[in-house]
Amino acid sequence: MRAKSFTDMACSIAGALEMVGDRWGFLLMRDLMLGLSRYDEFKASMDIPAQTLASRLRHFESTGLATRRRYQERPPRDEYRLTDKGRDFWVVLTALREWGDRWRMHGVEGPPVEIIDSSTGRKLQLALVEPRSGARVPAARVAVRAGPGADERMLRRLGAGNGPSRPKRR
Amino acid sequence: MRAKSFTDMACSIAGALEMVGDRWGFLLMRDLMLGLSRYDEFKASMDIPAQTLASRLRHFESTGLATRRRYQERPPRDEYRLTDKGRDFWVVLTALREWGDRWRMHGVEGPPVEIIDSSTGRKLQLALVEPRSGARVPAARVAVRAGPGADERMLRRLGAGNGPSRPKRR
Repeated sequence: MRAKSFTDMACSIAGALEMVGDRWGFLLMRDLMLGLSRYDEFKASMDIPAQTLASRLRHFESTGLATRRRYQERPPRDEYRLTDKGRDFWVVLTALREWGDRWRMHGVEGPPVEIIDSSTGRKLQLALVEPRSGARVPAARVAVRAGPGADERMLRRLGAGNGPSRPKRR
Repeated sequence: MRAKSFTDMACSIAGALEMVGDRWGFLLMRDLMLGLSRYDEFKASMDIPAQTLASRLRHFESTGLATRRRYQERPPRDEYRLTDKGRDFWVVLTALREWGDRWRMHGVEGPPVEIIDSSTGRKLQLALVEPRSGARVPAARVAVRAGPGADERMLRRLGAGNGPSRPKRR
């Protein structure tokens, strides 16, 4: 499927990418998140090659992103549902969608999907918050530091150039 | 580089993935975000094949994620910096890192990088907030709806199965 494993990179981003697999994996996660569960649904949703779809679903099952359930014996048919770990991936899909929307990577008509507060109908946005209070933290106060798992390469990255770009307030 | 274009899918996630390219593209965005800018720095950071690195940098330049500047003429050497659009990608990398950390896709030592509030030293977290107030919105109030750019496939996805999984409060 690919030449290089990203699992031994001491980087959670690389580890997460290894788990999703590739770009088809992201779209399949999107569809699972929206409640699609069966082969026919995935194939109607994306022009994904049948073998790619089958291999991604197997990969998701083996890495604990989704569970498989046989819903019909003759002929055998399975359906897939996200696990807690899989559902927790919503934040990645939301971030990709927000960025894609903001920089107009959707079609000319506008955003295909919106995430709203059901009590007000207003669109929501991802932001870095203080976990206890739930309050957004101003961009000027956001900083990056090495964690306990930082290897030599990560320390070098963190010390490189002019230092990390700060997240900008949108 | 790949068989299928994701640009005509009427999906901001697919559009964003097309722009990043592949998994190496994500790691390169990570390094650019941390301030790395030159070939030697990228090669020291990742075991990325030279041709892959060159093609991803060209792709980032042509899609407006990064700008190129010649800093040396003999021999010719270029450096790369993120544009505003590129820097805005921090939210995607942060989401991947958070998910990777939470499900222990880093090494055994713990998270390699932490995002903190520099005034308190406490770790921050992504959450869906009301853009004006900056207050986190409870998961039970978060809803997904079709936007103006939803095509037939998106409407079918949104109507599928038991409906979308709600983001869970972490």
